[in-house]
Amino acid sequence: MPTFQFLPFSALLGTVGFLCVVFTGFWAQHWRGGFAWDGSAKMFNWHPVFMVTGMLVLYGAAVLVYRVPSSWAGPKLPWKLLHAALALAAFVLVVLGLVAVFGFHNATGIPNMYSLHSWLGLAAVLLFSCQWLMGFAAFLLPWSPVWLRIIYKPIHVFFGSTILALAMAASISGINEKLFFSLTNGTVPYSRLPPEAWFANSLGMLILVFGLLVLWALAMPAWKRPESEALEDRQPLLH
Amino acid sequence: MPTFQFLPFSALLGTVGFLCVVFTGFWAQHWRGGFAWDGSAKMFNWHPVFMVTGMLVLYGAAVLVYRVPSSWAGPKLPWKLLHAALALAAFVLVVLGLVAVFGFHNATGIPNMYSLHSWLGLAAVLLFSCQWLMGFAAFLLPWSPVWLRIIYKPIHVFFGSTILALAMAASISGINEKLFFSLTNGTVPYSRLPPEAWFANSLGMLILVFGLLVLWALAMPAWKRPESEALEDRQPLLH
Repeated sequence: MPTFQFLPFSALLGTVGFLCVVFTGFWAQHWRGGFAWDGSAKMFNWHPVFMVTGMLVLYGAAVLVYRVPSSWAGPKLPWKLLHAALALAAFVLVVLGLVAVFGFHNATGIPNMYSLHSWLGLAAVLLFSCQWLMGFAAFLLPWSPVWLRIIYKPIHVFFGSTILALAMAASISGINEKLFFSLTNGTVPYSRLPPEAWFANSLGMLILVFGLLVLWALAMPAWKRPESEALEDRQPLLH
Repeated sequence: MPTFQFLPFSALLGTVGFLCVVFTGFWAQHWRGGFAWDGSAKMFNWHPVFMVTGMLVLYGAAVLVYRVPSSWAGPKLPWKLLHAALALAAFVLVVLGLVAVFGFHNATGIPNMYSLHSWLGLAAVLLFSCQWLMGFAAFLLPWSPVWLRIIYKPIHVFFGSTILALAMAASISGINEKLFFSLTNGTVPYSRLPPEAWFANSLGMLILVFGLLVLWALAMPAWKRPESEALEDRQPLLH
């Protein structure tokens, strides 16, 4: 596979991730009335911002921790803690993102959890919480047995990519449905592609690019931590 | 990674894939008026059926060809041809699926290519056509140089999984938007979860399960073709 330098790549990735967050915030601020925490549609606006920031950008940073070349030498524990901390920060934002949408729905009498977007999103969040808890139990708790780490590690790695793919699908279906909600009774419907539709569709494609770049970085053999880690894997928390 | 037998797994996978197709057809037949090829909404109904059958189920079969253990011994060319033929059959269905939706839109005056679902779907189809053409040029044409095969192979493998993930996201966003279209003016809106919504949401989750099973099978190290294939990779068409 063609090799690039990881660090210039991660600067590019960071830029794309930053743009995803800025675009999401700009969409909400410029076209959807801005932000508040009051049960109104302005409270809903936190939902895409928190989800894109947590479930995509911070999550993407968390899964790429072991691709940083300086993580390959020396003790693994600080990098494990960084990985767990970034994933936990992502998870906190995801929970806030859920609070934002449920708060808006409950205050305005909109039913919760009916659309396929919500089913998919909840599946992604549930898998993410299992992933974090299982990762903590297997790789950080000092009493977790070595056989568990060996069996569970490829499962954890597989779901690391999978949950990101689900988050991308959930984001895209969410942007799609929000545009159908917002651009039906306005002066220009979604089907006429007003500027907001162009902008939010482009945001969806940018999220796609970000996710594919992360999945690509995860798949690059040259960027994987060399597999001399059987011993280092036994560095749990509190040891 | 825990090892299961590939063949029982593929029987399970085939069952789930078959159910995806049957559910899609049943949704269209039972709730959306059935099928026709006349520019009406009945013509549109072919769109999800062709896309789920081609871009997910046949495509899933195509990418798993080299996981069949009997493909590991003997000449690779018949398996390459099977892989290319299944992917081509999938592609033909995808084109028919596009014809179905464009035909419906054009006949009824609905604009094409405005929703994020359509942008994502088109991106998936374009990537799929590049993937097929590049795969044919690099792995089947006898004059393709060995260095091209070596460089391109991991790219082809990466996009093999990626295009499936995009197809899953496109299917889910498409089902989601179709339910918002169909269940707004009816007696029971989508948000009240009538039987059709339950059914089509479940179809979306079944598509998710199918896609994850295929991605899982692709990621299983024990199911990968052993890498003694440097020589066999040089078996192009017409040699």
